[in-house]
Amino acid sequence: MALIVQKYGGTSVADIERINNVAKRVKATRDEGHQVVVVVSARSGVTNALVTRAKTLNSKPDEREMDLLLSVGEQETIALTTIALHALGVPAVSRTGAQAGIRTDYSHTKARILDIHGGDIPEHIRNNTVVIVAGFQGISTEGQITTLGRGGSDLSAIALAKVLQADLCQIYTDVEGVFSADPRIVHDAQKIDAICTEEMHELASVGFKVMQARAVELAGKYNVPFEVRSSFNNNPGTLVKADIPGMEDVLVRGVAVAKNQTKITAKELPDVPGVATVLFKALEDVMVDMIIQNTGAEGRANLTFTVAKEDASKAHAKVTEALEVLGSGTAEITGDVAKVSVVGLGMQSHAGVAARFFEALSQANVNIDMITTSEIKISVAIDPTQTNDAVQAVHNAFNLNESPHVQ
Amino acid sequence: MALIVQKYGGTSVADIERINNVAKRVKATRDEGHQVVVVVSARSGVTNALVTRAKTLNSKPDEREMDLLLSVGEQETIALTTIALHALGVPAVSRTGAQAGIRTDYSHTKARILDIHGGDIPEHIRNNTVVIVAGFQGISTEGQITTLGRGGSDLSAIALAKVLQADLCQIYTDVEGVFSADPRIVHDAQKIDAICTEEMHELASVGFKVMQARAVELAGKYNVPFEVRSSFNNNPGTLVKADIPGMEDVLVRGVAVAKNQTKITAKELPDVPGVATVLFKALEDVMVDMIIQNTGAEGRANLTFTVAKEDASKAHAKVTEALEVLGSGTAEITGDVAKVSVVGLGMQSHAGVAARFFEALSQANVNIDMITTSEIKISVAIDPTQTNDAVQAVHNAFNLNESPHVQ
Repeated sequence: MALIVQKYGGTSVADIERINNVAKRVKATRDEGHQVVVVVSARSGVTNALVTRAKTLNSKPDEREMDLLLSVGEQETIALTTIALHALGVPAVSRTGAQAGIRTDYSHTKARILDIHGGDIPEHIRNNTVVIVAGFQGISTEGQITTLGRGGSDLSAIALAKVLQADLCQIYTDVEGVFSADPRIVHDAQKIDAICTEEMHELASVGFKVMQARAVELAGKYNVPFEVRSSFNNNPGTLVKADIPGMEDVLVRGVAVAKNQTKITAKELPDVPGVATVLFKALEDVMVDMIIQNTGAEGRANLTFTVAKEDASKAHAKVTEALEVLGSGTAEITGDVAKVSVVGLGMQSHAGVAARFFEALSQANVNIDMITTSEIKISVAIDPTQTNDAVQAVHNAFNLNESPHVQ
Repeated sequence: MALIVQKYGGTSVADIERINNVAKRVKATRDEGHQVVVVVSARSGVTNALVTRAKTLNSKPDEREMDLLLSVGEQETIALTTIALHALGVPAVSRTGAQAGIRTDYSHTKARILDIHGGDIPEHIRNNTVVIVAGFQGISTEGQITTLGRGGSDLSAIALAKVLQADLCQIYTDVEGVFSADPRIVHDAQKIDAICTEEMHELASVGFKVMQARAVELAGKYNVPFEVRSSFNNNPGTLVKADIPGMEDVLVRGVAVAKNQTKITAKELPDVPGVATVLFKALEDVMVDMIIQNTGAEGRANLTFTVAKEDASKAHAKVTEALEVLGSGTAEITGDVAKVSVVGLGMQSHAGVAARFFEALSQANVNIDMITTSEIKISVAIDPTQTNDAVQAVHNAFNLNESPHVQ
């Protein structure tokens, strides 16, 4: 008998029929002798509809009110899922984030979990009652409803699994697991049977949307193993854990893409210490991704960085303002890019990954605009129209289209 | 400067445009120098949609889960209304029932308010911040979300007005006030300018749907004056208060109709003491309305009573069961009836109201099936197909089509 935390995303609870399917799945797990705690998201479409209503009324809605508003999505789902379980004869009870004691800081719309008290969940587990917990939401130390940011239900599930000392956390979604590349781009992308948490975290950070990166980070920090799998069939998914057999033998585990990136270039900067500090202080509120600096003509430096497309005009304005204070230089939006990344633990101990990566791009006639690396990741910025060719070429170059675990 | 509690019903906040109108109305009241606390219902249709979803999953959904489910309707509205007020530059903050300290007993789906702590609402009033409170919901002494039954937002508003010592409570709805009869039935029904609470309570109890009867009862008990008016125009509505000028001069204030009533007759009962007690103990869970008993042939008693149509089969089963225990008698559902009632404080001190009522029905060829009375009300059960004729005839007989306050 194991304690399993199951998380079902918005597409898995989208309508009455799917909620019923989730209830049946939970019942089946319980019938196998396991204890189950379920974390659910809002029905797909509900959160977006609420956001649209709010933004129609007010282009900059108050964040505290937005959290109160958005939390109703999950509150609906926990009640409906519990009601569905009752119809199947399964003892079940719902708990909001607050009732589950998910305490957060007061950063509305992007709160961080401080601790999880768990409320009466352990008692219900002992009584073999299924507990349905609202994902994505918590309660601040001031008693206000908070939300954990997009994909926050993953975070709720991982954090609950840790606090409840669950044996396994299952992340149910609308895909069968983690793939070596987006199957919509690469037709022969392979499902990965097992991946180590560190790689999964990098992949989630650079474009794999199947999991929230913060949730993976938390799973790594607290050593919570989890499985990503489909709620629409019974196929095994992808197991994500700290250590997997032969994990350093694989050079590249997957190829990720992040589209909708925009490049901004600040030119003619005075080449003196502290310039970059001033610029990026001005960009504190913006998520800056890749950065390169080079020295242009006459010893004046250029600095190019990428941001999400939606932040581009805000970032441009902030940099322009900072340059005016500096008294030198100009900023301009220099076009959209896509970021293609390869991630693999094996590249730490094996040379030549970067060379093979760049060669594959070159043979596909893809020009590399910017490069960044971490210990287990290499990313390049390229022309967004070449994304699909680039990903396919790189996927082939690392033999990711072959059966898993063989390079 | 006055403190005004404004309650807006589901049709008044049905969509984004109407929520915006509510925000403008609140702003206008505040611009006149008043302090405003707003109570809102769920957007019309939302509660029904949630109930339908739950009942599709489970024909008998758990009441605790239903309360958690239904409370999301008002939670959405308070956030959206607050966000709309911010767009108009009005400082505002939303509070759920729990945050407003509306403490109830634990009778889920029909909880009674125990007390209202008010939370930080008085502080916000002092700071001239508008507080938007979720109607219909509270929190039980066990910390669970409860709801107050259909129309419960009226109750929230009246109770808040009492606790906050508001100068006035305004109940905004989709009609212009309280009418002498349903204007959809009686085309020359007149809007009532002022009505005393006791009459309003009787009218709400016997079929006037404009206000929840419990809310009117509470307003009477705590002497909270309120006004029923339309959120779609600026016409004055109906003032409801303990004393109005010349209130005993009016024989009949209004004619109410309750349709969807069903008659059940228990026949051949043993005519011994205690039979009625046994029968109505069996009916504890059913709201029984009119009751008549008469002695039939051979000293055996018949007993006929009415219930809401939806409760008829349940009531029939319970009575049949009780008769089996008694060892005598049979029960049958004996057809649908409509209840037509006249209400007026003046009938306490003026004879002849019943005679005039029955004569009007007789002249309209309406047969009277059952009769019940209270101090300020006479009700009859009639053939439901004759409802409209009956109401129009009675309305005419008491000259209610003439300008108000003149008989």
